[in-house]
Amino acid sequence: MDYPSKLIEEAVNQIAKLPGIGKKTALRLVLHLIKESEQNTLSLTDALNNLRTNIRFCATCHNISDAEICAICSSHRRDHAILCVVEDAKDVMAIENTAQYHGLYHVLGGVISPIQGIGPAELKIDSLVARLSNNPSPVRELILALSPTMEGDTTAFYINKRIKDVQLKVSVIARGIPVGGDLEYADEITLGRSILGRTLFN
Amino acid sequence: MDYPSKLIEEAVNQIAKLPGIGKKTALRLVLHLIKESEQNTLSLTDALNNLRTNIRFCATCHNISDAEICAICSSHRRDHAILCVVEDAKDVMAIENTAQYHGLYHVLGGVISPIQGIGPAELKIDSLVARLSNNPSPVRELILALSPTMEGDTTAFYINKRIKDVQLKVSVIARGIPVGGDLEYADEITLGRSILGRTLFN
Repeated sequence: MDYPSKLIEEAVNQIAKLPGIGKKTALRLVLHLIKESEQNTLSLTDALNNLRTNIRFCATCHNISDAEICAICSSHRRDHAILCVVEDAKDVMAIENTAQYHGLYHVLGGVISPIQGIGPAELKIDSLVARLSNNPSPVRELILALSPTMEGDTTAFYINKRIKDVQLKVSVIARGIPVGGDLEYADEITLGRSILGRTLFN
Repeated sequence: MDYPSKLIEEAVNQIAKLPGIGKKTALRLVLHLIKESEQNTLSLTDALNNLRTNIRFCATCHNISDAEICAICSSHRRDHAILCVVEDAKDVMAIENTAQYHGLYHVLGGVISPIQGIGPAELKIDSLVARLSNNPSPVRELILALSPTMEGDTTAFYINKRIKDVQLKVSVIARGIPVGGDLEYADEITLGRSILGRTLFN
């Protein structure tokens, strides 16, 4: 597509670098910004610059935070004896939204993926082991809430191996049929796991 | 949704103001920016600020332009005797992409819409009339390429009334069945117009 202005072209190219946004959507956004007041664009770009420059991560759990220690880690109303290991900050938000969990988190920043060149050293696994290795360890249970993929399972195995000398309960989140899901359309592995992992009715 | 940081919340709110982007998509984009290098965010925000601050519009046709007069209006390879009236810059790009039109444009900046408070004074209609009223008028044909909506038709009627004293041919783009479209699913008005507006085979 030919753009009537170099400025448009540059803005479209930059926006189209974002995930899930193609050149057509980018052009629509750019034309929207031109129609709106200059102040709106400034507010948007200020918020993004501010975000990228000033964003901080909790020194304990590595979740996104406004302070040195995040609101969850510093809360006295959370159970500091349970630790939930997740891949990234999005997962923390998802679990928080369920309002079913009141322990702490540990954000790995990814999962082990040799294809993408991500090994254990790129993740916050050493820091997790250090958190658990204080003697006596304040953590009673470790919940592994990683994606049910090859990479997630590899990471879970690796963590389990690294902490095998620490006295604590290690659990994984339940795999099974999603609520509202249809048995007919579930894959065999999920359905099989849901049968093996059956729980008592009532 | 609770965000772990005020910076995230502000960025999500700003991005979610863009058309077609909700809070979930905005959050995904924000988390993507955090993962990427700071330079990427800076390039994006610079491009947007630059766009919004320095964007110019052609003094003749009101299309987006890098110069005082846009590349189309100043080209000697275009037919200056034909003028195509469109709603906005997106339409110019769309028509240019067809490579079927070699005349000039006039960008109204919208259509008459009393509900949205847009009257003829908000549009570049006076400037269109002025372009046509030079004596002798350099324009031989005026093509009205407005949306086939109530507002588009109203605008077309209004323009036609304003220029009734000017000696020139006024045409509208053909309404009919889209190429690849199915007769069965066409609405009656479109199908009716495609019959009335039939052209000779070969």
